[in-house]
Amino acid sequence: MGGDNAPHVEVEGAVAAAREFGVPVTLVGDVEKVQAELARHNCKGLDIEVWHASEVVGMHDSASDAVRKKKDSSIRVAFELVKGGEAVAVVSAGNSGATMAAGMFVLKRMKGIDRAAIAQLFPTVSGKTLVLDVGGNVDCKPIHLVQFAVMGEVYARFVMGVDNPKVGLLSNGEEASKGNELTRETSALLREKPINYIGYVEGRDIFNGSVDVVVCDGFVGNVALKLSEGLAEAVGKMLKAEIKSSFLSQIGYLLSRKAFNNFKKTVDYAEYGGAPLLGINGVGMICHGGSNPKAIKNAIRFAHEYALKGVNGRMAEKLNESFPGDAREREGAQAPDAGTERVAS
Amino acid sequence: MGGDNAPHVEVEGAVAAAREFGVPVTLVGDVEKVQAELARHNCKGLDIEVWHASEVVGMHDSASDAVRKKKDSSIRVAFELVKGGEAVAVVSAGNSGATMAAGMFVLKRMKGIDRAAIAQLFPTVSGKTLVLDVGGNVDCKPIHLVQFAVMGEVYARFVMGVDNPKVGLLSNGEEASKGNELTRETSALLREKPINYIGYVEGRDIFNGSVDVVVCDGFVGNVALKLSEGLAEAVGKMLKAEIKSSFLSQIGYLLSRKAFNNFKKTVDYAEYGGAPLLGINGVGMICHGGSNPKAIKNAIRFAHEYALKGVNGRMAEKLNESFPGDAREREGAQAPDAGTERVAS
Repeated sequence: MGGDNAPHVEVEGAVAAAREFGVPVTLVGDVEKVQAELARHNCKGLDIEVWHASEVVGMHDSASDAVRKKKDSSIRVAFELVKGGEAVAVVSAGNSGATMAAGMFVLKRMKGIDRAAIAQLFPTVSGKTLVLDVGGNVDCKPIHLVQFAVMGEVYARFVMGVDNPKVGLLSNGEEASKGNELTRETSALLREKPINYIGYVEGRDIFNGSVDVVVCDGFVGNVALKLSEGLAEAVGKMLKAEIKSSFLSQIGYLLSRKAFNNFKKTVDYAEYGGAPLLGINGVGMICHGGSNPKAIKNAIRFAHEYALKGVNGRMAEKLNESFPGDAREREGAQAPDAGTERVAS
Repeated sequence: MGGDNAPHVEVEGAVAAAREFGVPVTLVGDVEKVQAELARHNCKGLDIEVWHASEVVGMHDSASDAVRKKKDSSIRVAFELVKGGEAVAVVSAGNSGATMAAGMFVLKRMKGIDRAAIAQLFPTVSGKTLVLDVGGNVDCKPIHLVQFAVMGEVYARFVMGVDNPKVGLLSNGEEASKGNELTRETSALLREKPINYIGYVEGRDIFNGSVDVVVCDGFVGNVALKLSEGLAEAVGKMLKAEIKSSFLSQIGYLLSRKAFNNFKKTVDYAEYGGAPLLGINGVGMICHGGSNPKAIKNAIRFAHEYALKGVNGRMAEKLNESFPGDAREREGAQAPDAGTERVAS
């Protein structure tokens, strides 16, 4: 209910996911509004349910307030369904901070995890790169980034299907002498973990396919994500303006339109659907507030696959292996509800 | 002498700047090598001198070591020429950390400035945005970012020709509740300064023309710069691969080639030449190590204009206005030679 165009696009995306991929979907929200949207589609034979929730968390609500005060909000009720075993995953295009906070509040963090993280796939010349965290956690400690690295490694291995994924730490240069206080401490810790840590990577490496998982704090990751979106959009606008400036160019554009469309598909976030919320006892997929039905459809498909593959079980194993017997040490870093206040937009 | 293709491209760029813009140029470096390159050009009537320097700072030398140990390096000698009044500006495609360190060491920081900053112009749909710092200073304090903001404002006003430039602070969201510890403290300080501070901006705002000067620490700025370069390169490669995949697309590309070339010109760093080093008592322009002659030529033109416009005098006035009578307070933040160790690649 909290997306920019809710529940119109959410319902259309859900119907498409149920029809094209056979995913059983429960729509959580104002039952009248949701039913009215459903009536616009042919849902015959589709496994779609509606579950009523009377409240909505708005984009400008504070994340933790929204979760604590609006106990019957669609986002909180959706996570309660997962907790109760009536659903395996939550997909939301609403307030991403509230989604993160609700996920942590209702399902709790995984053992060994102090902060949940939002992970985002970026297109590269040869595949995809997973970047985390892209928005949840500003002012991270080194141990948080190490936890992100382990979660990202498991995600790359079991969801993206990468063998022995290369994990890099985002920095301002590749040499060990570069970085800031946070990255230097984190890098030392990462070298001791059972992952294929390749050291510092730079902003350009996100797009050149030289690394599979890029770890950073949520402030830097969010700047990187929004900068990429902004640049891709600006590039499109500038190119369009140039093409429109001459008749010959316009003819040329028409002839190469297929290439442009394929290219657009590569950089279109809707193809990826959403960004997984890693580190909670369950599956959450965070979509853009302005998602189109295709993005919702793909997010539902990814969330379903993610849950069926039992990735969280793999993650729990890897976390145990990566942090053997230092539970007490980690407890020190674990403030109650850390990260529920300062979250992504 | 320290650039990737030195002194070949530097000499070619300098000859072009002297010929096309009438800028008097002193080439600093190994006199034999530089003369050999000069002999390949027709320099008749051009105001070009050669000044010998026996040492070279390599890309992997530590910045401060290079400056202190290699006292006859081309970069240090070049700044000594400015100090002695025999030149008005330094342009370098060598080790940018060493350039920054040499500039601060020889010319000293401006009064009111604790850290010099590298500023970079980014193309936008409607003009240009200045981002600083993009590489010199990791782990900044709020006062450093405030100083960057004041310097950037003056640069935008007097070099970019923007009336009452809009200054933004890079963050992970526009709302005041977003940001990290550094940005929240900085934002409060910026509101008290005599500049048009518009608050937090996001990564996407760098490219949409909504802000003229974007302030951030050198870690985030460097990640942003390299990410932008990497994405622009990846976009070019992906589009090329798509266009090559069909004959019709190739014909189309040929017809719209002019549009593509104009577009490439917009995002080509060579058009901007270099990134100004702000906060020293003199003018320094830092170019990519892999600069082509056009980039060197444009950097020389910009450096010349910058020096002739007396921008540093304007900056000194604005710094006095922005930090009235708090010299002692600032002294506290000013560690000797801060920033000469950790510098840009």
